[in-house]
Formats: sequence, C-alpha cells, structure tokens
Amino acid sequence: MSLIYLDNNATTKVDPQVVEAMMPFLTDEYANPSSIYDFAKRSNHAVKEARGVLKDFFNAENEKEIIFTSCGSESANMAIRGVLNMNKNKRHVITTKVEHPCVLNLYQALEKEGYKVDYIGVNSNGELDLAELSEKISDDTAIVSIMYANNETGVIFPIEKISEIIKSKNKETKFFVDAVQVSGKIPIDVQAMGADLVGVSGHKFHAPKGIGALYVNSKTLLKPLIIGGHQERGRRAGTENVPYIVGMAKAAELATDHLKYEATEVKRLRDKLEANILKNVFNARLNAGIVNRVPNTTNIGFEYIEGELILLHLSDLGICASSGSACTSGSLEPSHVLRAMNVPFTAIHGSIRFSLSKYTTEKDIDYVCEKMPSIIEKLTNLSPFQDELEALKKLRQ
Amino acid sequence: MSLIYLDNNATTKVDPQVVEAMMPFLTDEYANPSSIYDFAKRSNHAVKEARGVLKDFFNAENEKEIIFTSCGSESANMAIRGVLNMNKNKRHVITTKVEHPCVLNLYQALEKEGYKVDYIGVNSNGELDLAELSEKISDDTAIVSIMYANNETGVIFPIEKISEIIKSKNKETKFFVDAVQVSGKIPIDVQAMGADLVGVSGHKFHAPKGIGALYVNSKTLLKPLIIGGHQERGRRAGTENVPYIVGMAKAAELATDHLKYEATEVKRLRDKLEANILKNVFNARLNAGIVNRVPNTTNIGFEYIEGELILLHLSDLGICASSGSACTSGSLEPSHVLRAMNVPFTAIHGSIRFSLSKYTTEKDIDYVCEKMPSIIEKLTNLSPFQDELEALKKLRQ
Repeated sequence: MSLIYLDNNATTKVDPQVVEAMMPFLTDEYANPSSIYDFAKRSNHAVKEARGVLKDFFNAENEKEIIFTSCGSESANMAIRGVLNMNKNKRHVITTKVEHPCVLNLYQALEKEGYKVDYIGVNSNGELDLAELSEKISDDTAIVSIMYANNETGVIFPIEKISEIIKSKNKETKFFVDAVQVSGKIPIDVQAMGADLVGVSGHKFHAPKGIGALYVNSKTLLKPLIIGGHQERGRRAGTENVPYIVGMAKAAELATDHLKYEATEVKRLRDKLEANILKNVFNARLNAGIVNRVPNTTNIGFEYIEGELILLHLSDLGICASSGSACTSGSLEPSHVLRAMNVPFTAIHGSIRFSLSKYTTEKDIDYVCEKMPSIIEKLTNLSPFQDELEALKKLRQ
Repeated sequence: MSLIYLDNNATTKVDPQVVEAMMPFLTDEYANPSSIYDFAKRSNHAVKEARGVLKDFFNAENEKEIIFTSCGSESANMAIRGVLNMNKNKRHVITTKVEHPCVLNLYQALEKEGYKVDYIGVNSNGELDLAELSEKISDDTAIVSIMYANNETGVIFPIEKISEIIKSKNKETKFFVDAVQVSGKIPIDVQAMGADLVGVSGHKFHAPKGIGALYVNSKTLLKPLIIGGHQERGRRAGTENVPYIVGMAKAAELATDHLKYEATEVKRLRDKLEANILKNVFNARLNAGIVNRVPNTTNIGFEYIEGELILLHLSDLGICASSGSACTSGSLEPSHVLRAMNVPFTAIHGSIRFSLSKYTTEKDIDYVCEKMPSIIEKLTNLSPFQDELEALKKLRQ
C-alpha cells in the first residue's frame, strides 16, 4: 500500500537535497564552529552562509537579525518571554483565539504569572477582528503575537495591516508573527510585514524536525531564553546544530524556488480535492472563507459524524490527514480554532484538515477524491443524527 | 595532511552507526510522532524506544524521568530555571567557580534578578571544597548545581558524597548535575549519584550537535522552559527531533559498550601523551591532580608562553586542541577554571587541553609527542621571560 501524505501542516518529508547538504556535517565536518583551528573553519563558514540564506528567506536587513533555534515552539517562547523579560513594567499582551497551542499555552502560563492577556476573536470565515485588536492596544501592551496563517484552516491574516494598527496605537509595542505555517507556502518579507519578531520551523518546509529560526529586528532587544555560551551573539546558548542549520538553509532556498509551484500546482490540487469533496458529499462544508488561504490547506467539516473515525478509515487506505494540530492530537477536545469561528458543534467533531506539499501528486488527490464519498457515506449511515442528515440532504439537493 | 582531533571535549565525530540509525528518520519515516495514523506509529515507537535506552544510560528508574532537549545548555537552563520557578520563595542557589560557562552565565543572570548565589571554590588539584559547600547550604537553598567533571581539567567531583552533604543539610534542596563532560567517559548512575536532575549533551558522545537529555527524578517538579504542545509529558514543547533522538540513543548504547575501552585504551593513550610531554618539555606542568580524572582529558600548562600561539602551530600540523571551552574561545580572558585553581598566571596563558576519544590512535599520539617539544621550544625561545625560564630549567633539571 502506498502512502498518501496529506498532513504537511503537521510535518513534511525531508527533501533529499536537504539530506545531501547536511551529510558532510554529519560525517567528516564535525568541528565545533567556535573552535579556533583550521578544521573548524568549514563548519563555522557553513553556519555563516546558512545565516545569510535565512536572512534572504526572511528578507531581513542584516544577518545579525537571524537567531537559530531548535524549533518553532522555542522561537515563540524566546520571542514572547524575551520581550516581556526586557520590559518587566509592561503587563499586557495580546494574541488571538486561534493561535497554535504552543503560543496559547504560553499565554495561559503568563496569565497565571499575573499578565493581562487579551485574545482577539475571528469571524466564521476565520478572519481576525481588527477593530477589537485596535481597541485593546494600550500604553501597557508589551507585545502582540499573531500567527501569519492559521495551521488548521490555512486562513492568512493581514499582517501588514495589523502592524500598521499596532504601531499607530503604540509605537513601542512589539509585534511577533508566528510564521511557522506559511514558510514555504507564501513569501515571508519581514520588512513589508512590519514585524519585530518572526518565527519559523524547519520541519514545515522539508528540513528536519528540531531546527527553527527567529528573526529579531535590530531595534528589538530581548532577554535570552537559554543563557550560556556566546553563540548566536549571546542570544541563544548551545553548540550550533551545524547539520540542521545547513539543512534548513538548503530547505529555505528550495522553498523560495518552489513558491510559484505552491501558488499554482499545489493550489490547483488543493482546489480540486476541495471542490470534489464539497460536490460529492452532501454533508461536507468548508471551514473557512475561500480566499486568503495558504495554497496547500483545506479544512472540511463532515456534519454529524466523528472525525477520528474518518481519520482511521483514511489511515487504513494509507491516507494521512488530521483533525487539527498534531500537538493536540490525542486530546478529545474539539478544535479551539473552529470553536472560535463558531463552526456548529455538529461539524466541528467531523472536521478534517488536508494539507498538501510539493510531493503531492494528481494520483494522490484522485485517489482521495475517489475514496472519500464512500467513507463518509458509510459513517453517515451509522450516525445517530439521521433526521438531521435527512433534512440537510434535502436542503443541499 | 591528516587530521589529529584531540578536542573531543568541545565536540566529537558522529559515529557512522549513529548516522545509519538516523537515516530512516531523515528519509521515509518522517511522520510527526504525535499524529494518529498508522504511518506515525514507527516514529512514535522509535522515540519511545530511544527513551528506554536513555533511561538505561542514566540508570533511571522510569522512562518518564527522561526529557529530550536540544542541547546541554538547554538541559541546564531547564533544570535550574525549572526548579527555581517552581519554588519562587527560595532565593538561594549554590554552584561552583569552575562550572561550564553556560551554567556560570545563567547564575550571573540570576544574581541580577535578585538571587543570592554562592560559588564554591576548588584547590590547586581542582578538587571542590566540600566543607565550604556544607556551610553554605541553608533552608533557603533551592538548588545546588555541580558538574560531574570539569570540562577543562577532567577532574571528577565526588557526586555521591556531595549529594549526601546536600540532603543531610536540607532534604528539600534539589541537586542538578551537569554530566555533559562525563557521558561516554565514565558510567552515569543517577540513583547511586543521588541527583535530582542530570543533564547530558549528545554531541559529546558521538551523536550530532543539537540534541540533549535531562533526567528529572519523579520527586522533582519543574516549570517548563519551552511551553506549548504536550510533548515530553508537557515539560518540553516542540515536535520531537526524531532523527537525533534515535541517533543519541544509538550513541548512548555505543558509549556504554565503550566504557571499558575508555577506561583502559583511551586512558593509556592520554597517560602516554601526558607523561611524554611532561618528561620532554621542561616548562610543562599538569594543571590538575593526577587521580580522579575522566580518562580522555589532560590539561597542561606551558609556562611563560602564549596558548593561542601553541594552538596555531598545532593547527598548522593538522592537530586540533584547545585552550578551554569552545564556548569561550575567541575571548582573551584567561581560563576561569585555572584561575579558581590558583594556577600561576604565567602558566594559565599557555595552558592547552588535549581531549581524546575512541577514534584517537597510537599514531596520533606518537605524532603529537614527536612535535610538541620542538613547538614549545621554538615559542619558549621567543618568550620575553628568558630569566624566569632559565631559572625554571635549572630547577627542573
């Protein structure tokens, strides 16, 4: 049975070119880049080069603005804690109701520590309430943290407009953008975005798990999360993960080269899958507005049936999809993102996210299109909500 | 020119068997271990298995006591911050004057945050002042943090005795042991050690840079440093670095298998190098007591000459050694470890650490033994301290 991997928002296949770029640093070139002998020059140089590539990937002004981290969660924790610990007198922070759990859990921890946290809501298309954001920003607001696109629905937030709102209300408020879900899908341009801090995670764009980066503009000071050696200009201690740093740089280059392919081919396949399911399954509904989404993601609610059952049936056919963030899987809580969008409860529980990548083929999509209707029909017939389903069927026919 | 790598306390060559163990997870087995479909079971299982191997490596009681981190610095920061943030009313911490810079810098940051920090001293053999330690422990002492062995001199501290002292003075004081420099060199047995938290870093025992582990016994609660997803039982967020976790487990297995080789062959080669240099170079002195050292490390002071120059001459011959921690290299500060040992200033500046590994050959050592006397002689002749050198020569003849 071949694998059809449509869970690329959870993680991605490492590109073989990325592995190839890393191999010298997993074999002969093992020097610690901080050492002073000649042997260390190549690994030291490789890290420098990678930093330049990441600078371009972010469109940062200066390589000094790039910090290598171990993952997206570390990038977010470092950004938020780093800013707050540098501005201890400011006790107000703003985020959204639909952030990735890693950011939401951090804000819940901050609340327990006495911070006031405002969570901005979204409408049923998944779009942020910008008026609410504007109202909440005060003199006491240390940081606003907003994801670039939502990991469950793919909805892209208007970052440029948001940074204008933030800076017009309080020039000193820092703006952190969690760009984990857009990297490799749409261009990231930190200068156009007007963001002070931007985090990415390598494994979402075909680098390995365990490497990330944080852009911090030169005007933004932050206290390090991991204190120790002089690495990363004293902002992140720990011997540099040379193989993965080199690998992520290669992945960033490849991602930039593939942006057009994402916007056209990946989008075409996503749209085909989405249209096909919505057409052929009467109790399917799209959980987002159609526009302003990353090209690889669709989130479809199957009303009156259980998402976990759909996923298990798909898994039996070798198809990988998910019901939300992998970081919350295993919990039976319905998606906080879909709840914030006021998706009806009867659809939340049966919501499935398909996320494609450059490795997704037409054959993959055709196979899923072929199998979905019968899987859903089978589960629909077992649903205890037969009256509601009958009414829905009539309505949609 | 072949490479003679005698800087294994800075980092080590990745064992080819480690790379081989990682490869499936850098290629086909890329699933996020938290996902629920069948494809994710293999990566999930691999992480579980690796945790079991690390449990054995530490001789921990339970796999739940093992947390995977991104490096030794993260392990140390997580341990110390984690304990302090869980016990906010206690404001006293104890460490030593000879800790790795990563730990020392963290303590300096804690001092700025209002903590009282005591730094325990060492004698000229590099041995800790246990009476001083005992005196300093009070009801207010939240944590004692002591390295298992010093990275510069290789001197091993009597961890069992230290934990007895700590617990006899204050049962609630937590004991963190930075075991980065002993892993793969001597056995680590957290139960015999009586430590509450023990950190290691994979790249010091032939795993890649960018992976570490922290043992936390079941009685010790700690606040996470990186908050977010449910990974590592909620104590360390971030998608698991499956390839490196698997790689570190393989390295831990291999390290256990090689402990006898370290204690015999590596020690024999180290002793040969040391004896040879001390015999043939009149202005060489051993910077440590002879006993109670890890088997791979020797630190030799060459009096009245400049260490950087020695290292550059060695580098020209393809020999890698260092003048201290790679994390402080580039700084011209003399070693804080040797200063704490009261090594004369005239020897501190010319002190060189040689650190061997299982890959070090007899031929490597013979070559260094052959070359060292002439390098030192050349530099000695350039020294401005000719009178002192003449006196020293007479004394030692």
